[in-house]
Amino acid sequence: MENRLKIFSGSSHPELAARVCKNLGMSLSPMQIEHYSNGCFEVILGENVRGCKVFLIQTSPLSGLHRSIWELYEMVNAACKASAKEINVVMPYVSYARSDKKYTGRMPIAGKLFTQFLETAGMDRFVGIDFHSPEFEGFFDLKTRVDHLRAYPLIINFIKTKDLTKAVLLPGDDGASKKVAKFSEGIGVPCGNVKKRRISDTNVIIDSIEGEIKAQDVFIIDDEICAATTAKEVGKKVEELGAKSVTVVATHGLFVGKAIDNLKSIKILKEIAVTDTVPIADEVKKNLPLTIIPIDELLSRAILEIYQEGSVSKLFE
Amino acid sequence: MENRLKIFSGSSHPELAARVCKNLGMSLSPMQIEHYSNGCFEVILGENVRGCKVFLIQTSPLSGLHRSIWELYEMVNAACKASAKEINVVMPYVSYARSDKKYTGRMPIAGKLFTQFLETAGMDRFVGIDFHSPEFEGFFDLKTRVDHLRAYPLIINFIKTKDLTKAVLLPGDDGASKKVAKFSEGIGVPCGNVKKRRISDTNVIIDSIEGEIKAQDVFIIDDEICAATTAKEVGKKVEELGAKSVTVVATHGLFVGKAIDNLKSIKILKEIAVTDTVPIADEVKKNLPLTIIPIDELLSRAILEIYQEGSVSKLFE
Amino acid sequence: MENRLKIFSGSSHPELAARVCKNLGMSLSPMQIEHYSNGCFEVILGENVRGCKVFLIQTSPLSGLHRSIWELYEMVNAACKASAKEINVVMPYVSYARSDKKYTGRMPIAGKLFTQFLETAGMDRFVGIDFHSPEFEGFFDLKTRVDHLRAYPLIINFIKTKDLTKAVLLPGDDGASKKVAKFSEGIGVPCGNVKKRRISDTNVIIDSIEGEIKAQDVFIIDDEICAATTAKEVGKKVEELGAKSVTVVATHGLFVGKAIDNLKSIKILKEIAVTDTVPIADEVKKNLPLTIIPIDELLSRAILEIYQEGSVSKLFE
Amino acid sequence: MENRLKIFSGSSHPELAARVCKNLGMSLSPMQIEHYSNGCFEVILGENVRGCKVFLIQTSPLSGLHRSIWELYEMVNAACKASAKEINVVMPYVSYARSDKKYTGRMPIAGKLFTQFLETAGMDRFVGIDFHSPEFEGFFDLKTRVDHLRAYPLIINFIKTKDLTKAVLLPGDDGASKKVAKFSEGIGVPCGNVKKRRISDTNVIIDSIEGEIKAQDVFIIDDEICAATTAKEVGKKVEELGAKSVTVVATHGLFVGKAIDNLKSIKILKEIAVTDTVPIADEVKKNLPLTIIPIDELLSRAILEIYQEGSVSKLFE
Amino acid sequence: MENRLKIFSGSSHPELAARVCKNLGMSLSPMQIEHYSNGCFEVILGENVRGCKVFLIQTSPLSGLHRSIWELYEMVNAACKASAKEINVVMPYVSYARSDKKYTGRMPIAGKLFTQFLETAGMDRFVGIDFHSPEFEGFFDLKTRVDHLRAYPLIINFIKTKDLTKAVLLPGDDGASKKVAKFSEGIGVPCGNVKKRRISDTNVIIDSIEGEIKAQDVFIIDDEICAATTAKEVGKKVEELGAKSVTVVATHGLFVGKAIDNLKSIKILKEIAVTDTVPIADEVKKNLPLTIIPIDELLSRAILEIYQEGSVSKLFE
Amino acid sequence: MENRLKIFSGSSHPELAARVCKNLGMSLSPMQIEHYSNGCFEVILGENVRGCKVFLIQTSPLSGLHRSIWELYEMVNAACKASAKEINVVMPYVSYARSDKKYTGRMPIAGKLFTQFLETAGMDRFVGIDFHSPEFEGFFDLKTRVDHLRAYPLIINFIKTKDLTKAVLLPGDDGASKKVAKFSEGIGVPCGNVKKRRISDTNVIIDSIEGEIKAQDVFIIDDEICAATTAKEVGKKVEELGAKSVTVVATHGLFVGKAIDNLKSIKILKEIAVTDTVPIADEVKKNLPLTIIPIDELLSRAILEIYQEGSVSKLFE
Repeated sequence: MENRLKIFSGSSHPELAARVCKNLGMSLSPMQIEHYSNGCFEVILGENVRGCKVFLIQTSPLSGLHRSIWELYEMVNAACKASAKEINVVMPYVSYARSDKKYTGRMPIAGKLFTQFLETAGMDRFVGIDFHSPEFEGFFDLKTRVDHLRAYPLIINFIKTKDLTKAVLLPGDDGASKKVAKFSEGIGVPCGNVKKRRISDTNVIIDSIEGEIKAQDVFIIDDEICAATTAKEVGKKVEELGAKSVTVVATHGLFVGKAIDNLKSIKILKEIAVTDTVPIADEVKKNLPLTIIPIDELLSRAILEIYQEGSVSKLFE
Repeated sequence: MENRLKIFSGSSHPELAARVCKNLGMSLSPMQIEHYSNGCFEVILGENVRGCKVFLIQTSPLSGLHRSIWELYEMVNAACKASAKEINVVMPYVSYARSDKKYTGRMPIAGKLFTQFLETAGMDRFVGIDFHSPEFEGFFDLKTRVDHLRAYPLIINFIKTKDLTKAVLLPGDDGASKKVAKFSEGIGVPCGNVKKRRISDTNVIIDSIEGEIKAQDVFIIDDEICAATTAKEVGKKVEELGAKSVTVVATHGLFVGKAIDNLKSIKILKEIAVTDTVPIADEVKKNLPLTIIPIDELLSRAILEIYQEGSVSKLFE
Repeated sequence: MENRLKIFSGSSHPELAARVCKNLGMSLSPMQIEHYSNGCFEVILGENVRGCKVFLIQTSPLSGLHRSIWELYEMVNAACKASAKEINVVMPYVSYARSDKKYTGRMPIAGKLFTQFLETAGMDRFVGIDFHSPEFEGFFDLKTRVDHLRAYPLIINFIKTKDLTKAVLLPGDDGASKKVAKFSEGIGVPCGNVKKRRISDTNVIIDSIEGEIKAQDVFIIDDEICAATTAKEVGKKVEELGAKSVTVVATHGLFVGKAIDNLKSIKILKEIAVTDTVPIADEVKKNLPLTIIPIDELLSRAILEIYQEGSVSKLFE
Repeated sequence: MENRLKIFSGSSHPELAARVCKNLGMSLSPMQIEHYSNGCFEVILGENVRGCKVFLIQTSPLSGLHRSIWELYEMVNAACKASAKEINVVMPYVSYARSDKKYTGRMPIAGKLFTQFLETAGMDRFVGIDFHSPEFEGFFDLKTRVDHLRAYPLIINFIKTKDLTKAVLLPGDDGASKKVAKFSEGIGVPCGNVKKRRISDTNVIIDSIEGEIKAQDVFIIDDEICAATTAKEVGKKVEELGAKSVTVVATHGLFVGKAIDNLKSIKILKEIAVTDTVPIADEVKKNLPLTIIPIDELLSRAILEIYQEGSVSKLFE
Repeated sequence: MENRLKIFSGSSHPELAARVCKNLGMSLSPMQIEHYSNGCFEVILGENVRGCKVFLIQTSPLSGLHRSIWELYEMVNAACKASAKEINVVMPYVSYARSDKKYTGRMPIAGKLFTQFLETAGMDRFVGIDFHSPEFEGFFDLKTRVDHLRAYPLIINFIKTKDLTKAVLLPGDDGASKKVAKFSEGIGVPCGNVKKRRISDTNVIIDSIEGEIKAQDVFIIDDEICAATTAKEVGKKVEELGAKSVTVVATHGLFVGKAIDNLKSIKILKEIAVTDTVPIADEVKKNLPLTIIPIDELLSRAILEIYQEGSVSKLFE
Repeated sequence: MENRLKIFSGSSHPELAARVCKNLGMSLSPMQIEHYSNGCFEVILGENVRGCKVFLIQTSPLSGLHRSIWELYEMVNAACKASAKEINVVMPYVSYARSDKKYTGRMPIAGKLFTQFLETAGMDRFVGIDFHSPEFEGFFDLKTRVDHLRAYPLIINFIKTKDLTKAVLLPGDDGASKKVAKFSEGIGVPCGNVKKRRISDTNVIIDSIEGEIKAQDVFIIDDEICAATTAKEVGKKVEELGAKSVTVVATHGLFVGKAIDNLKSIKILKEIAVTDTVPIADEVKKNLPLTIIPIDELLSRAILEIYQEGSVSKLFE
């Protein structure tokens, strides 16, 4: 039977898309971008997609975010107008998923603008990894299919390769504490807790840390490393409490602003591990003891299940 | 009666918005932008808009275009969620109106993405000036109100202030030839025509020019000056044909790429006149004999008619 | 000018609706329900609503919840078909706001069904109090107006009437800890924290309690008292820690299942205070030291601001 | 080829769903319901449905009708979110199909709320049996597929098994008179007519009966037996006119209120026959000479035709 | 205050529209139609409608029906694009309301196409008179306002002007029998009934007629006189039964095909009375004893109530 | 595998549909139309379409245009309600594509009414040939598939069969000049240009003609021959300029009004060639030296590619 699976990559993370295709034993379909002098651009899919199930891979990059989102909308609509059978957006990191509430009057719910525009453009299914909050799925239309993938099997596997005799797991965030409790059970390693207050987007205060920390190998686990403010503060706190080493583990590794400096300020920092849902800058790789947990395998397996109408749930059993 | 008219400005052309408000004897309502370290941002309207008719002024800037479009979507939705009665987008220059057709297979119709997203976000009415093509109005939903303003009264007034005894009008583009013919009639000045072929976005060839050119003051009239390739080629051609002077007039003055050099290469260039639908860079102002025809008066009159439910058509009688 | 404000009450909480109307110096508009022998019913609005701003008050009752929701949908559509100008749903307690995420595969997002059905039926604006999570606002369409009222000014006022010399505030839930921290600042009273794990809908384990508890008057603050499992466990824990008294305060007082017994098992229980977003059963009133903080004033002020197109935000300044 | 047909049953008529599955040689897919203490619940489909054609069987029960409708909406959306390929609702009896018009001002059209909510939730096709009026099909969106099944082949077959030498058919309702005329032709048995006036939902007056009744075996044929008021009045009238026996036949057997007493008050009552589009209470079975015409065969054949993209019309040729 | 009410007339019944305007003391707004050589046309509203409540009067004419429907759609959209505040379609006779069900497989529900296209084009409210069936209101979107006017007060008034000492009312159709029963009560005149079978669109058989007919003045009352087949058959039947005279009364007078001959074949025909929801051909007026009950007064009163946001229900009290 | 391709023809061009089917080796599916005495009609598809890809062929005829458009809407909805899998409209000539802009205030955009109604009725894909302007594709919803076929390969093939030693190509319209330039390159024949002004729908003035005309065989190429006003004026002008012969070539041959006379007034007229996107009247065939380029082959190949989910683009490589 003729192959009806086509994968295109936006400009945000082509190297990841290439690996996903390689896993599936297929080539990435080409895409071209026409730029106009007034600042507009138009994408042109380089291959016939009529009757195909199309997967469009685009992450949320740190720079040029809105240009990149617009590129994705154009890709969706190009596939739609070209009679693709099913249009799947694969977005490993969804930055606007954080803009999910009004914290004051007279502001938009930008995360919902993001999702409804995709639906308006013609998307059938959204595939993402570790949304900022599970409620985000409710931002999509009742009829939009959403496959919310989880990176925890990869993270658990990573932790398991370490010497865990003196390990303790710490959440980097309240939202992460339930997940860390589960990891703790799954791996059979104790977990503690962190009391913190967020002063601003880049400023947190650690009130206290629960659990046995002294002389332990501490694993700080979080969804996302952004400016690494939390990691820095927790890291320094456990340093004070006599911890032996600090390993920071997260799904999304953004490393923005002073992230490198913040992490390097933890003297007992041993390792940082993130998946590659966003491309990692060379500067980050050079300056930090970084382990990248590749996400391509998870994505290619999910794409295959979706294409063959199998089960995505079974990837997480 | 309490004032129910509120005007907000996006970040693309605040100075124009300020003049519009001044004309109307009112202040621009404040708006704040919260930036996040992952590249996202959220706008916050700084004034109550419940039950108000809100006008959101945002043009299509040359740099940061997609960021600016996104900002507009957020403004629309913020006004919507804050219970504004009517949400009017005022976009003096609409760059994506040029992306109005598929010239090959497997591409999006990006102009339509632009319009449908505004409608999805909650816009009630769109106010623009001199769209690239009149069909663009059909890209909006059947129910969306569109007020398509025209700059020609301003342009005719500008031309009329000149010594027209030896004037001849030339369209810069096929699309402009009908308009120029009308101007010619309205002002009582002869017009010619230009045969050109567009090789690429920045390359055109002038095959011939019709009409009496020798020793004339030529007015090249166009919708938009982008890289000024057309103006340059037409200008040089009329130079060869013995024209006395060249004046270039357009609604939208973008001046991208080599626009300044292109225009300066016309030796008999006398003047360039554009409205300020987009902000004009200082470099352009310094290096070219530029006259800016202010657009704020037209916008403020249109806003007043819309607010008071009068007639916009009468502005063009 | 003729009055264009009409208020109707569903069958879930007529007494509250009556007080709201009384505050506004107007009468509740009558509504009739026709029941059919096959189990269906149809509502009939008893007063002309053409051109009126209609407010439909219906809470989420404990019994007959789905019948009550359906009644609300019929009320919305009856007002719509009868040419009301604006249809506002006022739902003091929104039980389906808790069904806001998929915690496993192959389940609906029931909270979103609830909101989209209201929009399908013709609702223009939703007015609720203290949603389970702020993300719930993103479940409404981008164009639906939502006024999310907060009960905290009422709760703070209640607490302030008490002797607070030895008071300490405790959140009943992680989600409440930020709110409690704010209260603590606002009132000038210290706050603690609670570490708990939820085993099931009706079973939680308290791991530890932070803050000075011994000999203090503890105020446990939560969004909602349901089966009071959390309150019971926290109450007993602070009892063990030597607290002097326990006061439980919440916005929504459901008191389901063993709530009364659970609360009575706290020996140092001094008082329970809830608003009347849902009707309180007589059994609860009789058996518990209950203070009801009336919510009608807040609702009637919000309705007036919305009707007059004033500002709802100013109610919370 | 792998089986892509999945059938789930709501809680209203599981025994019927079980027979349908048995006919098709397959098992009913499991479904679980999570109840919360605030009265909400969430369904969880117990089997993977990705890429499957899903049939959701739920009738309109007499008690808990609105809870049951809500359960159906959740089932539809659960299947949708779980990437089912096609979502078919099979509703043997649709009670809200009777609420199909406004008989006074300021009331909703509740039947349309029912259908539009199903579409909002994600339903692709609706399968029902003997709607109250054929116009009901127009209440669905232009794009919704509707398969309106008819029970008449089953009813004709039932009647044909009887001794028809002295039979006469009577419609129980004006709406049924055309149908009865057709039956009369098809079976070759005379038919009469009934003049009645409906005073209320449970009160009718029979003005006259046309046709030869004396010493005949009368078959009263109707769409639905609800409180059996009509059947009682017609039955007693034909009794007066000297009929030999009365058999009451209908598609939907609700038997609400005083239905049993009403039917038993017909002294010459011989038999009552209904299909099992709704579950029949034991009390009804015990107290009445009831024959149940099973509907499962019709449903399973329709489901098979729909699944295999054959023809549903051919079931009625 | 400035007048914000504008009335336009399509080409189907301009004389009626003129009378409606006259009643309201205002002029009909002008409308122009541009015809193109390829068969297309475009309407142009001749007056500013920004912020106005616009009423568009168009009936369903016998010839050029589809051209006329299209004209109406263009009028709706022209008003919408020109920023009308509220777009009300006034359609005295809605012919496609009869296409309200599928009587076989593989056919459209044309009545619903008619309504949904109006909504797509931008209509806010539909005003009609005596729909073919009340279920038709459910064919409009849940959010579309529908004002279903009734001609019965006019018809009752007409009948009351007659000598009713020997009058008997007969329905022309089953659907009309309830209405006739109500008239009978309201006027205090006996009514009978008609048993008929429809063989085709133009062929019916009268089985019997109930009620005292001999030497009576019979009033046959129906919704619509189309080919007058029913009227003819009923008329001849009552002739046979010794009636003294026949008067035929209906809301909609189409008089198509052999209607004139059919009516003239009733020898005791005394009078025919219809409203002018459709224009009556001169041939009909000349050849029949016709009384036209003018409908303009009802329409102008309804338009005024709608414009002033009063009550339409009160017109029928 | 069972055939799932079904083709139906509306009443506008059945002969073309028959040829398309013949090319595909299949029969046209039957369709029946029920006419009612009030002017309405309903189509009934004569064959099961469940699960089929349905193609509905209907062009824009010169007479009965709106009836024909309505017939198409009914066909779309009939296929939709009968559970067709994919509904493709094939409209060889789209007359309302010319109504694509507002040239004054207060008019509709009728071309958009046309497209949105098709979408409302249930159409999945639109297949047309040589739209009046490419922007028309933007009038369809972002999600509607549009296959815009081009007749130029057929037209180039036609021209190539002629003696081209003295040929020159002329566009009949500005919009056609780009196309003619391409043809000129593709065939290797020189092209000229025409300066014209349109005074009205049926009146144009030719200002000048560029290119070598004397003693040449002139091919006037246009999209559509309507009243042939342009062809006549250009033809007479090239006659004056000493051309040897005139051949008029166009995609759509409408020949309305004085088209025959206009064309016959060109004395050196040699041939007229059009495709049969609309049926050509016998009068035209008899009175003009007409060559009909059959379009059925292109349509049947496109239908096959669409049905088999191949590539439509490759038809134009």
